[in-house]
Amino acid sequence: MAGNSFGRIFKITTFGESHGKAVGVVVDGCPPNIEISKEDIQRELDRRRPGQSEITTPRAEKDEVEILSGVFEGKTTGTPICMLVYNSDFRSKDYSYIKDKFRPGHADFTYYKKYGIRDYRGGGRSSSRETIGRVCAGAIAKKILRKLGVSVYAYVLRVGDIVAKNIDFDEIERNPVRCPDKEAAKKMYDLILSIKKEGDSIGAIIEVVAKGVPVGLGEPVFDRLNAELAKAIFSIPAVKGVEFGQGFNVVNMRGSENNDEISSKGFLSNNAGGTLGGISSGEDIVLRFAIKPPSSILISRKSITIDGEECEIITEGRHDPCVAPRVVPIAEAMVSLVLVDYYLIDRVRKNIF
Amino acid sequence: MAGNSFGRIFKITTFGESHGKAVGVVVDGCPPNIEISKEDIQRELDRRRPGQSEITTPRAEKDEVEILSGVFEGKTTGTPICMLVYNSDFRSKDYSYIKDKFRPGHADFTYYKKYGIRDYRGGGRSSSRETIGRVCAGAIAKKILRKLGVSVYAYVLRVGDIVAKNIDFDEIERNPVRCPDKEAAKKMYDLILSIKKEGDSIGAIIEVVAKGVPVGLGEPVFDRLNAELAKAIFSIPAVKGVEFGQGFNVVNMRGSENNDEISSKGFLSNNAGGTLGGISSGEDIVLRFAIKPPSSILISRKSITIDGEECEIITEGRHDPCVAPRVVPIAEAMVSLVLVDYYLIDRVRKNIF
Amino acid sequence: MAGNSFGRIFKITTFGESHGKAVGVVVDGCPPNIEISKEDIQRELDRRRPGQSEITTPRAEKDEVEILSGVFEGKTTGTPICMLVYNSDFRSKDYSYIKDKFRPGHADFTYYKKYGIRDYRGGGRSSSRETIGRVCAGAIAKKILRKLGVSVYAYVLRVGDIVAKNIDFDEIERNPVRCPDKEAAKKMYDLILSIKKEGDSIGAIIEVVAKGVPVGLGEPVFDRLNAELAKAIFSIPAVKGVEFGQGFNVVNMRGSENNDEISSKGFLSNNAGGTLGGISSGEDIVLRFAIKPPSSILISRKSITIDGEECEIITEGRHDPCVAPRVVPIAEAMVSLVLVDYYLIDRVRKNIF
Amino acid sequence: MAGNSFGRIFKITTFGESHGKAVGVVVDGCPPNIEISKEDIQRELDRRRPGQSEITTPRAEKDEVEILSGVFEGKTTGTPICMLVYNSDFRSKDYSYIKDKFRPGHADFTYYKKYGIRDYRGGGRSSSRETIGRVCAGAIAKKILRKLGVSVYAYVLRVGDIVAKNIDFDEIERNPVRCPDKEAAKKMYDLILSIKKEGDSIGAIIEVVAKGVPVGLGEPVFDRLNAELAKAIFSIPAVKGVEFGQGFNVVNMRGSENNDEISSKGFLSNNAGGTLGGISSGEDIVLRFAIKPPSSILISRKSITIDGEECEIITEGRHDPCVAPRVVPIAEAMVSLVLVDYYLIDRVRKNIF
Repeated sequence: MAGNSFGRIFKITTFGESHGKAVGVVVDGCPPNIEISKEDIQRELDRRRPGQSEITTPRAEKDEVEILSGVFEGKTTGTPICMLVYNSDFRSKDYSYIKDKFRPGHADFTYYKKYGIRDYRGGGRSSSRETIGRVCAGAIAKKILRKLGVSVYAYVLRVGDIVAKNIDFDEIERNPVRCPDKEAAKKMYDLILSIKKEGDSIGAIIEVVAKGVPVGLGEPVFDRLNAELAKAIFSIPAVKGVEFGQGFNVVNMRGSENNDEISSKGFLSNNAGGTLGGISSGEDIVLRFAIKPPSSILISRKSITIDGEECEIITEGRHDPCVAPRVVPIAEAMVSLVLVDYYLIDRVRKNIF
Repeated sequence: MAGNSFGRIFKITTFGESHGKAVGVVVDGCPPNIEISKEDIQRELDRRRPGQSEITTPRAEKDEVEILSGVFEGKTTGTPICMLVYNSDFRSKDYSYIKDKFRPGHADFTYYKKYGIRDYRGGGRSSSRETIGRVCAGAIAKKILRKLGVSVYAYVLRVGDIVAKNIDFDEIERNPVRCPDKEAAKKMYDLILSIKKEGDSIGAIIEVVAKGVPVGLGEPVFDRLNAELAKAIFSIPAVKGVEFGQGFNVVNMRGSENNDEISSKGFLSNNAGGTLGGISSGEDIVLRFAIKPPSSILISRKSITIDGEECEIITEGRHDPCVAPRVVPIAEAMVSLVLVDYYLIDRVRKNIF
Repeated sequence: MAGNSFGRIFKITTFGESHGKAVGVVVDGCPPNIEISKEDIQRELDRRRPGQSEITTPRAEKDEVEILSGVFEGKTTGTPICMLVYNSDFRSKDYSYIKDKFRPGHADFTYYKKYGIRDYRGGGRSSSRETIGRVCAGAIAKKILRKLGVSVYAYVLRVGDIVAKNIDFDEIERNPVRCPDKEAAKKMYDLILSIKKEGDSIGAIIEVVAKGVPVGLGEPVFDRLNAELAKAIFSIPAVKGVEFGQGFNVVNMRGSENNDEISSKGFLSNNAGGTLGGISSGEDIVLRFAIKPPSSILISRKSITIDGEECEIITEGRHDPCVAPRVVPIAEAMVSLVLVDYYLIDRVRKNIF
Repeated sequence: MAGNSFGRIFKITTFGESHGKAVGVVVDGCPPNIEISKEDIQRELDRRRPGQSEITTPRAEKDEVEILSGVFEGKTTGTPICMLVYNSDFRSKDYSYIKDKFRPGHADFTYYKKYGIRDYRGGGRSSSRETIGRVCAGAIAKKILRKLGVSVYAYVLRVGDIVAKNIDFDEIERNPVRCPDKEAAKKMYDLILSIKKEGDSIGAIIEVVAKGVPVGLGEPVFDRLNAELAKAIFSIPAVKGVEFGQGFNVVNMRGSENNDEISSKGFLSNNAGGTLGGISSGEDIVLRFAIKPPSSILISRKSITIDGEECEIITEGRHDPCVAPRVVPIAEAMVSLVLVDYYLIDRVRKNIF
């Protein structure tokens, strides 16, 4: 009800503020007897953490995970898994200047109006540090999916007007943009760097492909697999649009073009992006989403104080000029969480006798 | 868990198959003392029903609602409201030819694989007749919103390459396309009619605007208002993409352009589409979604039987060449349901003493 | 949230008022391919209906069930099953005298204070006619349990100071009291009849035994099997106490007596009543519950009007002097619903690879 | 679904094993702007901790709480509150002897059969150390209730055949038994001490009274206030029976005795124990529950190993001969959690315009 939980059977609850003592997650409903090590979690966290390259924020958080419960002698026990990261490099002084002002594009205004109180330090709960818990939980989900033969890949498809053309999954982790096209990655990197120098920021499109998803995942009619994936993706800060398969392009298509025909060997196309009637079809799940340019920029903007007085504001500090490369592991985490959850939901009513 | 419920506090559960005895809904959690008449519900159902014009299916369902519980002497009592529509014009013979075949683009294949059994008549549960229950529940939600000063408008923004330019809310119900631009409406009508004659179908984009939404609706971090709205919209059959405010266009924008500045009189722009950090900002909620061309066409397509043998299939019967005009009231219903639910959720923790 | 749903995976939502158009239930989450006929449901409803003997209310409701959805060609399809009973013999005139008064022992006062409006006819939503939906859903649950080798028996253990000593399951349905001890049944019958003649009513204790429940059902730590069973039983109108195994008697016991020892052939006793740590142990589930004497009596009692003025009230009409015989099928339904739900929950995380 | 959460709007999720790194809780849905200090929490934890007197286990855990999130400058912010206690005095060696054996009366057997793996150290997740999280969350709930004018008292009513007669709330915390009758407390203390010397244990009955509960809490028909309270109490380890008001005694009562009459000044009796139709009546909530003698005793009992071989077992270590005095604060916590949750639920649909 208060919105900090996600999932039904494989359920996560995140907690923590950017500059509080810790951020973390409780995973409730993980099957027992899954091998989990601290390294499994840390590997994913390291992909999300700041300071990975010139185009990410240089903040120096180590983000080291601690597993507090639910794992015994290297295996899950079926009890809740609490994982957390203590906040270290928080430099609260950086943020005192926004104590009484709302940063444009940020959630300062809405949190304050909703709750009548806010932990203003570093965005508090609305900080993307909240996603640390998701990435920890997602690492467990990924491990389960791997055993089920499912692979989830996210990558940067577009930044500004630069679009990845050659999709090579092996390339993704080789460049700091996490773009699967080496050429495009280079151009994106240069673009982001030039925008950083201007003190500005830029948006991007990320694509996610899930391979090996079995037929039958998704619960009609409201909890369709695509609907839940969309919710999962829109729960990531800064997302402004989500589409599957042909996506918005369907407005230009005829039924005779768009309908995926079926042969005895399977579907002849995948315009649908992997679901029919909200249930996975066995084809790749293919979705794309747009993330807005980060709101923290070094260019002065108009705003108001908490008392309603007009002011100018520059978001000081060290920020990401394009958040896409660090969103890639978060998107993989969210999609993996949905797939594990829906896999468990689907099997619950199968072959019950 | 099984996916037929939506909402948390104002919660609906729909039931019924296209050619079963009835389709309907139970609304649990409606506040007491709301005046509700059968006419309130019927008015919305009539906007959804088939046979409204040349460009919708000519099936002759009357779709008359019956209120079975939860309303006493014209007012809600706080107990569950069951509403249903008995199916009349179902002509089951029309569908016997698909008993053993999967229609491309339809959910026949995935339902069969998921459940091992399916009511094949008219799509069974995957039929858009299921949305009747949503429209009934949405009619109550709309009535509540009206008292709260919130108005929800949906309309057809684009069909093929014809785009509505002049948005006049008063025009929407005056033309059979439900397009707010009279000129564009005429062109869309002609386009849809010509496609109908070809036995084909076409996609569309619908825009939804909610005015008067108070600041503060939305529960961070997973149950953001935009995330829940996206899920609601993706739960409508045939939706392939959802975006808010600038939507996918943010890929081309700089932070300095996209950030909505704030003055003492309010926001100076609404690129965000009405939410910040997943919480309503007081600006209009603006979202757009793409719906694919209907899968039922009179053009022969390749498919397989339930035994995996290849076949050709034409979806006989009377179908919508473009489903957009009838989706408009469904979209309004879903958005209204989310807004009422989130309004109730938000107030639960406000001023508790 | 609004309290009209029960269960997680096998989930039911009941609706309807005593004198509204209909009462019923939606079952969401029933596995597909379960054979269900109208007779399966009707058989259980007939055990609950009024007018079965001299010691139940002579109201003449037939209570004929209609299955509206979710069953196709005699089998469940995995979609929501809506079942309802139209109200026929409602004689609303009987109840007009309580329009403005609160009947002692009834929920008139609390419903009115909670909702500010109430359907006063026959108790409205607080009427035990609401349990019709539960019995319908329970009939499906029972059918599933039977295939799993689980049997649930409820019976009247005690009325006033008459206690059943010889527990013979075959006797239960042979006498109108539903007491498993023929001798005791006779005495209970006479006692109830004499109390009926006085216009008064009497309480009872019902025992429920579930045989064949597999080890492992129950979700620690809050959703223990016993905790959920207790909630299920307390959700039945008029229940005032629930105990398992030795129950309240444990206050007098030492650990050395009460601990159930284990041998290689199983437990040597069942003081626990079938659960350990909230998880089924493989032993019989044994619970007892107390139901108060029905509040509707023909003896004048003090009360107040909705305006707070003092008055006297006699609950006219035809009532049950002891509700126990008709509660037996309701208790079986609730216990069966919990067991099916927990069976499904338990398997969800088992052997997932 | 996995059972480690409780509540709907004021929702808690506990985590942690007896001998893992930590035990704790996440509270999601706490209203913002509630003043909370570490001392508020610690005070309640100190009532639960071991080593308080001769009749509790002498284990030396300090159980010091840490608040990790959700509180900013001494006030709740509306975001999740994570609180935890690091485990210190765990002496894992004490428990190695039960690694391969099931202790009678404990959940060792059922956890092992359910999950196929268990953290055997100190009972792992089934240890009553899990209730530390509940007491932390309950401390916040209590603080909210106090501002609402609601007081919750739990106390030991009976141990063996010694019954408290004079109920003096001020006496409860003055004696180590937490019995409200000074005389009875002395006798109970002596009885418990003598049983401890025998290496045995004994059961007890605890009564809980909630004063000042407003009319209208409780959601019919399944989520009745009494049903949810019963579930809350049965979720406490070792509880075997729960009753309200006259409880099991109703079996001997007539309707004419049991019905609580109403005058213009309120109810003339409270046989119901504070609810009618599952909704609070404004009278005191009165419930009693029985807890079994602790299963850990120094007397040898028969059991089996995880391989099914017969063995004898003595539960070595330092244990409580009667758990009642330490269960008192846990019961208060659970009842307080339900009341706050139901208070929030009830107001959600009130006066919405």
